Amino acid sequence: MTSFPLSRRLVSEALGTAVLVATVVGSGIMADRLTTDTALALLANTLPTGAILVVLISVLGPISGAHFNPVVSLVFTLRRELAAMPALGYVVAQILGGIAGTILAHSMFELPLLQASTTIRSGGAQWLAEVTATFGLIFVIFSGLRFRADAVAWLVGLYITAAYWFTASTSFANPAVAIARSLTNTFAGIRPIDLPGFIIAEILGALLAALLTSWLLMDVRIPRTLAETEPTP
Amino acid sequence: MTSFPLSRRLVSEALGTAVLVATVVGSGIMADRLTTDTALALLANTLPTGAILVVLISVLGPISGAHFNPVVSLVFTLRRELAAMPALGYVVAQILGGIAGTILAHSMFELPLLQASTTIRSGGAQWLAEVTATFGLIFVIFSGLRFRADAVAWLVGLYITAAYWFTASTSFANPAVAIARSLTNTFAGIRPIDLPGFIIAEILGALLAALLTSWLLMDVRIPRTLAETEPTP
Amino acid sequence: MTSFPLSRRLVSEALGTAVLVATVVGSGIMADRLTTDTALALLANTLPTGAILVVLISVLGPISGAHFNPVVSLVFTLRRELAAMPALGYVVAQILGGIAGTILAHSMFELPLLQASTTIRSGGAQWLAEVTATFGLIFVIFSGLRFRADAVAWLVGLYITAAYWFTASTSFANPAVAIARSLTNTFAGIRPIDLPGFIIAEILGALLAALLTSWLLMDVRIPRTLAETEPTP
Amino acid sequence: MTSFPLSRRLVSEALGTAVLVATVVGSGIMADRLTTDTALALLANTLPTGAILVVLISVLGPISGAHFNPVVSLVFTLRRELAAMPALGYVVAQILGGIAGTILAHSMFELPLLQASTTIRSGGAQWLAEVTATFGLIFVIFSGLRFRADAVAWLVGLYITAAYWFTASTSFANPAVAIARSLTNTFAGIRPIDLPGFIIAEILGALLAALLTSWLLMDVRIPRTLAETEPTP
Repeated sequence: MTSFPLSRRLVSEALGTAVLVATVVGSGIMADRLTTDTALALLANTLPTGAILVVLISVLGPISGAHFNPVVSLVFTLRRELAAMPALGYVVAQILGGIAGTILAHSMFELPLLQASTTIRSGGAQWLAEVTATFGLIFVIFSGLRFRADAVAWLVGLYITAAYWFTASTSFANPAVAIARSLTNTFAGIRPIDLPGFIIAEILGALLAALLTSWLLMDVRIPRTLAETEPTP
Repeated sequence: MTSFPLSRRLVSEALGTAVLVATVVGSGIMADRLTTDTALALLANTLPTGAILVVLISVLGPISGAHFNPVVSLVFTLRRELAAMPALGYVVAQILGGIAGTILAHSMFELPLLQASTTIRSGGAQWLAEVTATFGLIFVIFSGLRFRADAVAWLVGLYITAAYWFTASTSFANPAVAIARSLTNTFAGIRPIDLPGFIIAEILGALLAALLTSWLLMDVRIPRTLAETEPTP
Repeated sequence: MTSFPLSRRLVSEALGTAVLVATVVGSGIMADRLTTDTALALLANTLPTGAILVVLISVLGPISGAHFNPVVSLVFTLRRELAAMPALGYVVAQILGGIAGTILAHSMFELPLLQASTTIRSGGAQWLAEVTATFGLIFVIFSGLRFRADAVAWLVGLYITAAYWFTASTSFANPAVAIARSLTNTFAGIRPIDLPGFIIAEILGALLAALLTSWLLMDVRIPRTLAETEPTP
Repeated sequence: MTSFPLSRRLVSEALGTAVLVATVVGSGIMADRLTTDTALALLANTLPTGAILVVLISVLGPISGAHFNPVVSLVFTLRRELAAMPALGYVVAQILGGIAGTILAHSMFELPLLQASTTIRSGGAQWLAEVTATFGLIFVIFSGLRFRADAVAWLVGLYITAAYWFTASTSFANPAVAIARSLTNTFAGIRPIDLPGFIIAEILGALLAALLTSWLLMDVRIPRTLAETEPTP
């Protein structure tokens, strides 16, 4: 998929996930400090996140594929487009990068470097929201790669911009980002104890999308009736 | 127009309309819960809708054409670019998909799955707004397909972003979405009794746009005076 | 520049200016009704205007060039890329289209069809703002056409999005739109008596930009020292 | 890199930096006058800045490279893609252009032309934010030029849109803009005495990014084992 050596691909995954998490957490802190209107804070959290996704996927995609997300790496592995060992490396890089992103955001805003979030995000409706959010994300990535490969960065950025608002969970859709967000007790946080529910929902949504795309996007076969029914001489 | 089998095209239309409606209804609920400022709520309803339209048209357009809208399918049928039977299937898929989108949004936000809206949207000014909104949408689609086919997803998303604000009706412009929105008593709702007025206005706007584009975009003929006036030997 | 007959080009200019004005005036009314925060109202006025410009220039540009603005037509005429007679037709179509846009917005929002604005926009600082706004617009159009012709619609939409905020006049930058906005006593209005100052400033800004671009974008000549100094045998 | 004469390149750098600063300062003044919500003011400062960056880089990039930023010129010089003398001219043009931008904004908003800001922006957290902001900007520019050269204008505009919110300093990331912003005692200002800390942090961030990109983006060598180990006959 990419000809860059694995060391640089892992740095790319860690760096991208770090900046993504720094943006989600940092813009949440900034917004929360500047307004008392929660909708405005969420908007000021949404637009930077959508924007940075377009940027990160554009500039790091050619190096590592710009997954920044363990369930994306999982689906690539299931599709046999990524081998198991580098995939494992990707996931470790994403999780460590994500945690570094939280630490960076906290440092810039003069907060304790690591915190345990107390924001409750649990229950069936939240899990359904995460299944939906991740289903959509994986669908957009693979359908986008199939039909509009050069626009995938934009499509992912715009999808997340929408999903922040139409899913009740504000669309985490990413286990590495969820883990990193459990370590900040600010606007974007999630209680550590709520992580398993979110991560299971995200994996489920990803698998459902992988199933649907494998059918919906399947190559359209041109019928070759003669060749298939007539015996070759 | 597309070589995908009808079954997948219908799934594409249903899925796209479902996600579109889930975005319109879901982001309306989210915004309404987080702020008391109606303009901010409408902005937080507008941006996700515009964004998801770009995404959905990009990733599903190559499969089914990404109509997600009965009046779009109607105009394609009138232009003889879609046969009557698949067009009927499209419309059914869009209506069912739209209703599924409302149910999905309600589930994620822990609301009763189907509700009757009590939001009044009626009267001449509202109908004029819907005629205008749908006229613009159909004009953008067909003029866009003619001149900038690869940008139509963006043009539709941006057009709806504007039309949310410049039409007094917030631009439904879509009978399937209107039906789905009559089943939610939240920010984006419309009273079921107000549906006929909206749908008639939308059909009227679409037909007016089809007429105008057929003249305005007509091929520019190179005059062949000699060939036409001189008898062939 | 375009091979479409003049009748269709004039309809394109009138239609485009009408929708542009309907968006500016209509989104201003909608925003003003929904919030008491003027910055939010201006943002809800800005984003639809920027979005509709991208759309209108994309879908009508191939027909008429998508000027929608007398000073744009003026500069094209000065550059001898548009003859005087069609240019005059363009300007008339833009002014009539703009007024129709105001009437349409008023109709959709149930207001008196034509009104005299009482919003004062006058004085040296406002005029400087209009010179600046129009200078920038003309510069962007002609530099954009030279270097990134397929992106001009986007560049104009983004430029106006910025200019709404960085110029003290909210960037009218368009005599036809200014005239149409003098006929609405709503958010986007301007007193009729303030029109001459704005229009003169806009023409001045346009001429300054035409001068600068003619120097800055001038073709870079490859020195042909030998050919010019040596006599041909 | 560009074939335009140096005089026009310097005008391009001065003009671009002037309009950039006028947008940052002017939109800050406009926003601050229209709302009491600081998050909304920052949003109304962010969106015009991101938008004008896309525009300016698109229309002036082909002339001068559209640096508008001394640390960008510095890194181009270190990479030996710009000679020392024109680089010095670039920096002078950027600083003078930036100051002119502040004066223009003040003129349009009827404020004293030059002011000393009293806004404190100092301390380790702010400097870390500036290191981060500038690191990201330089990384985006050079990785963008390598992989998506035609999209760099968009990537920079979107990056700054995000960085306004995720860095605690609102991402100056530009010594010329910082100097110009020290001369306005409005929303976007910075105390002159705080300039050195910001500028040193920006240079540091730029150098770190230059180091990282030189390794991360290094050409991938195709191993030529045979050719390298076997002696040629």
